[in-house]
Amino acid sequence: MDVLKQRIRQDGKYLGNGILKVDNFINHQVDPKMMDACGKEFARLFANVGATRILTAEISGIAPALMAGWHLNLPVVYARKSKPVTMPDTVYLTVAPSHTKGHMVELIVSPEYLSRGERVLIIDDFLASGSTILGLVRLAQAAGSEVVGIGTLIEKSFEGGRQALAHLNIPVHSLAVITRMDETGIYLEE
Amino acid sequence: MDVLKQRIRQDGKYLGNGILKVDNFINHQVDPKMMDACGKEFARLFANVGATRILTAEISGIAPALMAGWHLNLPVVYARKSKPVTMPDTVYLTVAPSHTKGHMVELIVSPEYLSRGERVLIIDDFLASGSTILGLVRLAQAAGSEVVGIGTLIEKSFEGGRQALAHLNIPVHSLAVITRMDETGIYLEE
Repeated sequence: MDVLKQRIRQDGKYLGNGILKVDNFINHQVDPKMMDACGKEFARLFANVGATRILTAEISGIAPALMAGWHLNLPVVYARKSKPVTMPDTVYLTVAPSHTKGHMVELIVSPEYLSRGERVLIIDDFLASGSTILGLVRLAQAAGSEVVGIGTLIEKSFEGGRQALAHLNIPVHSLAVITRMDETGIYLEE
Repeated sequence: MDVLKQRIRQDGKYLGNGILKVDNFINHQVDPKMMDACGKEFARLFANVGATRILTAEISGIAPALMAGWHLNLPVVYARKSKPVTMPDTVYLTVAPSHTKGHMVELIVSPEYLSRGERVLIIDDFLASGSTILGLVRLAQAAGSEVVGIGTLIEKSFEGGRQALAHLNIPVHSLAVITRMDETGIYLEE
């Protein structure tokens, strides 16, 4: 998707150790118009999967999921990383290793907002190793929902996430695919 | 704002101890169309304050701030509660007591996205005691920015937040004001 690729070229910074800095427009500062364009593109890509709900993970998944939800007219559920007092006693919880944090994080969803028979579209900011997204898949499956598609803003194709999701046999779309990052630059799939 | 008030009446739940559960449409599940209507209303209310940037706090502030940013065509910055590896070494950090978490939380903004001369509109989900919003105000002031308005989805008028913000002498708007909550119900200002 050209707008996003252009922005990565312009404002993305490779910090070493596999870390891409995109906090100018995704992870700390958000450009609402660009995020809306991404949501519209997700809606186009997943128009025919019959989703009834979008699932993402706080924090950085919220903006793209919200915009996709606006265009698809679907409710958005964001998995929490700690259980707020407003959640019921019994919840769905899974753990997933966080690539950028270096430790395990919890992903928690209330059974109130994910239930048997839902068709879930997962939207997140990054597809890297796929571990967070596989955590969201486990939450959906625990609830008896079916995951019908996975969309991410940026895929790092060299970290194996796409292969880790292949067994699900569902559409996986990323709006920008980075094939290589090093001190010479950030290389995007055309 | 009628859409939000109606939704609070329909789906809000008073859990006791001053806790209002709105995670059906704000804090865990988000209704994108309703949030968009709230963003549009913020844009109307703050059309003339000359804001150059929106500041909010992760996590639940992101959705309303993003929609307000879309309608006002402004970048949105969300203060982080822990410092990601992508942030520079030196940041603006303040601490604020969290009403719902019962301990102090950190609010962190990178100097890259908040600088001298900015006119900052603060948007958040709740105005209760005002402590989170005052934390955001301190961050903006530390950066040499000027806070020109404060907008929240839901105000609990009995927790003193509006009085705590009065010395700022800037417009403060809440889209729904709860004047009382108890076992008999949730009472909204007309």
